Amino acid sequence: MKPKSQNIKSHHGTVSRADRQRLLGQQGCVCWFTGLSGSGKSTLARAVESRLQSMGRLSYVLDGDNLRHGLCANLGFSPEDRSENIRRVGELAALFVDAGAIVLTAFISPYKADRDLARSSIGDADFHEIFLDVPLEICESRDPKGLYKKARAGELKEFTGISAPYEAPEHPRLRVAGDLSLEDSSEQVLAFLQSAGFLQAPAS
Amino acid sequence: MKPKSQNIKSHHGTVSRADRQRLLGQQGCVCWFTGLSGSGKSTLARAVESRLQSMGRLSYVLDGDNLRHGLCANLGFSPEDRSENIRRVGELAALFVDAGAIVLTAFISPYKADRDLARSSIGDADFHEIFLDVPLEICESRDPKGLYKKARAGELKEFTGISAPYEAPEHPRLRVAGDLSLEDSSEQVLAFLQSAGFLQAPAS
Repeated sequence: MKPKSQNIKSHHGTVSRADRQRLLGQQGCVCWFTGLSGSGKSTLARAVESRLQSMGRLSYVLDGDNLRHGLCANLGFSPEDRSENIRRVGELAALFVDAGAIVLTAFISPYKADRDLARSSIGDADFHEIFLDVPLEICESRDPKGLYKKARAGELKEFTGISAPYEAPEHPRLRVAGDLSLEDSSEQVLAFLQSAGFLQAPAS
Repeated sequence: MKPKSQNIKSHHGTVSRADRQRLLGQQGCVCWFTGLSGSGKSTLARAVESRLQSMGRLSYVLDGDNLRHGLCANLGFSPEDRSENIRRVGELAALFVDAGAIVLTAFISPYKADRDLARSSIGDADFHEIFLDVPLEICESRDPKGLYKKARAGELKEFTGISAPYEAPEHPRLRVAGDLSLEDSSEQVLAFLQSAGFLQAPAS
């Protein structure tokens, strides 16, 4: 679909992503947290969100909580539906980035191909794969939702790390070690965003 | 950016919608523009976006341009796919509202049931149906993309207003008359947002 009218732009101008980024004093991007169930993706995303908010930066967390009941409510857990779920997250994140926001996604996203699709939707420069490198044994010992127990009992099929693969990122933008404290982990993410220039408006 | 409010610290590490709204100095909501093809939905949405940006407010336009090639790329134009398209727009808009943004959607969205579904996803208080009340004859005489011509020739099936119904809103939040200038139309929308309190942070 093309714009309804081209000549309107000369009167009103078109608001660009750069305009919105200048308004917000930041650059839109995606911190794509990936790791096993129980590796702390949502917890770290929320901690980073809190730090960004206190710095006056706009961020938004996308996770199962706000997507599985809404945009992705008509998707199940088959391999095809899981891929479509991640595809929608990628496209959604790309829109938020265009709006100027710093997006923090927290999905296991075990397949490299799905993450690569999200990267291509968002653009490599703005897609920061952050690998929570927590060993299976530790995730399973935490088991905050009792899912590993169910998976071991055969009650959950195709459970990542138990009965389905997790394809670890080969070259993540950041690797967060499993023995790091939450404070140190979020500091690592913040330091990256700061040093890479995402916490200031683009040069005009 | 200079935060619109100093009171932007999150409580207990969880950043709320209200926190983000205080940061942005506005309240998230959706202006849902509906009307026939050629009624000027995208043009008006872009004009309002431009006005909001110049006032330092964050808004974002959702229309066919940024959705049909991304989030909704796997949807066609069957009645079912059109409904799913509008459903996704509604859920997407609800997420942007939760992020604190003022969303401007520009879709024909001819069916009351689909718009009502979007309203229920977003919440009635934040869903502003804006009806571009432009008669078919005028839209057809504009025909910016030559679609009416094709529809009359039978080349486009189920074309809204010609071979498919347009269910006009019965009680839109705003009705924009077809003979209003673009400037007056956008002023009408801005005046509504201002008077309804959406251009200032929520009271804490």
